[in-house]
Amino acid sequence: MKVGKFSFNIAPQFVDFQSKVKLSHLIDLILTASGYNADENGFGIRHLHKVGGTWVLSRFALEMNYFPKEYEKISIETWVQEVHTLNTIRNYRVYNEAGEVIGNSTSVWVMINIETRRPMELKLLEGIHDFATFQESGIERPLKLDAVGGEPIDQFSIKYTDIDINQHVNTVHYLDWMVNSFTLEEHKANSIKRLDVNFMNEVVYGNRVAVFKEEVAENDFRFEAKADEKTAFRGRIKF
Amino acid sequence: MKVGKFSFNIAPQFVDFQSKVKLSHLIDLILTASGYNADENGFGIRHLHKVGGTWVLSRFALEMNYFPKEYEKISIETWVQEVHTLNTIRNYRVYNEAGEVIGNSTSVWVMINIETRRPMELKLLEGIHDFATFQESGIERPLKLDAVGGEPIDQFSIKYTDIDINQHVNTVHYLDWMVNSFTLEEHKANSIKRLDVNFMNEVVYGNRVAVFKEEVAENDFRFEAKADEKTAFRGRIKF
Repeated sequence: MKVGKFSFNIAPQFVDFQSKVKLSHLIDLILTASGYNADENGFGIRHLHKVGGTWVLSRFALEMNYFPKEYEKISIETWVQEVHTLNTIRNYRVYNEAGEVIGNSTSVWVMINIETRRPMELKLLEGIHDFATFQESGIERPLKLDAVGGEPIDQFSIKYTDIDINQHVNTVHYLDWMVNSFTLEEHKANSIKRLDVNFMNEVVYGNRVAVFKEEVAENDFRFEAKADEKTAFRGRIKF
Repeated sequence: MKVGKFSFNIAPQFVDFQSKVKLSHLIDLILTASGYNADENGFGIRHLHKVGGTWVLSRFALEMNYFPKEYEKISIETWVQEVHTLNTIRNYRVYNEAGEVIGNSTSVWVMINIETRRPMELKLLEGIHDFATFQESGIERPLKLDAVGGEPIDQFSIKYTDIDINQHVNTVHYLDWMVNSFTLEEHKANSIKRLDVNFMNEVVYGNRVAVFKEEVAENDFRFEAKADEKTAFRGRIKF
């Protein structure tokens, strides 16, 4: 299926104090839909393992009209827009139960060698170009984000429960580091309209993380997290 | 149904670096099974809301032969053992896919007034005594745990993503604070044989948490967490 559509329920464990789905969980569902569709097309992680590769998310953007609440059913539609030499663009549309579009998202994926962690050419995946639909996402591509300086707003060490089966911090957790820089009052007063993330480096057990934040324009926040001095990601949240 | 039995899959998001289910997730599933069975019996949280009450977990104990892994299917059997004036004892058995018992658990629940947070007498729940089966759990009751002193091993503040729809930190998160006191090497070398927890006070947004730990005998660890000087819980992990 060139375009996959998958349904999910918002379980009570994955909502915030206002019953709204947590950003990290919503993106977890979007990535789950990616995995399902890639598997259907024959280019899931299991297939990539055969050529010694795996998918990693490089850039991501999301725009939401509103965040669905506890017990809501949503559907996520996903398709590959383009396949280039070293990356592929995958888009998403998020629907509510009434079938209305409540969000749009777009992402850039790279195949890396599992051992060397270096990018691999996508021509190694025979037939993958046939899945390019050339259908746009409806929102602007993920921004390339600049460094954020100043003093860290938060610092902490990576612990046992932060580490997943791939022996690193799952990228969706980076989103928690951003949203946790806002108070409950700020979350009550605002809803995220757009998110951009540039994923740059893995974070591993014992790393000391420092989070940086800057408001570059009204309600336009830039983030950077460094793990032992190496940039883990850069992000943007626009209310 | 006096005895309920519910099936769950261990999803990849909920395992640790060794593919073993995270302790907090396993207990989340046990509490989910409690909720399902209480609902079936007519004494779920929705019913308690009608008398102005809600269930809170007071004590908990778990013994595991091993922790199930990613993609494993488990079943959790649960029943009420006894109903007293102010609390009820609920037991659990955890089965693997082959139908073998891999764990046993027992818990003490109290009904509190939603507004005052004070205990309520269970005779307010007409008919609840009929669900007492007088069937034991197969393991010793949850220990009453003593205070743990010394210097805190960890300190942190409660943030936006820690707060659930009840405006506090969900008790299962307390388990993360315990297991995070061990390194990946310690987790690799050991498996939790028995867990005891005494749940004492809610933790809310902005609280400053201090975690204390003491090894009272070989592989027998005691924990206490204080949130703004009030004891949130005491715990024990035995490898």
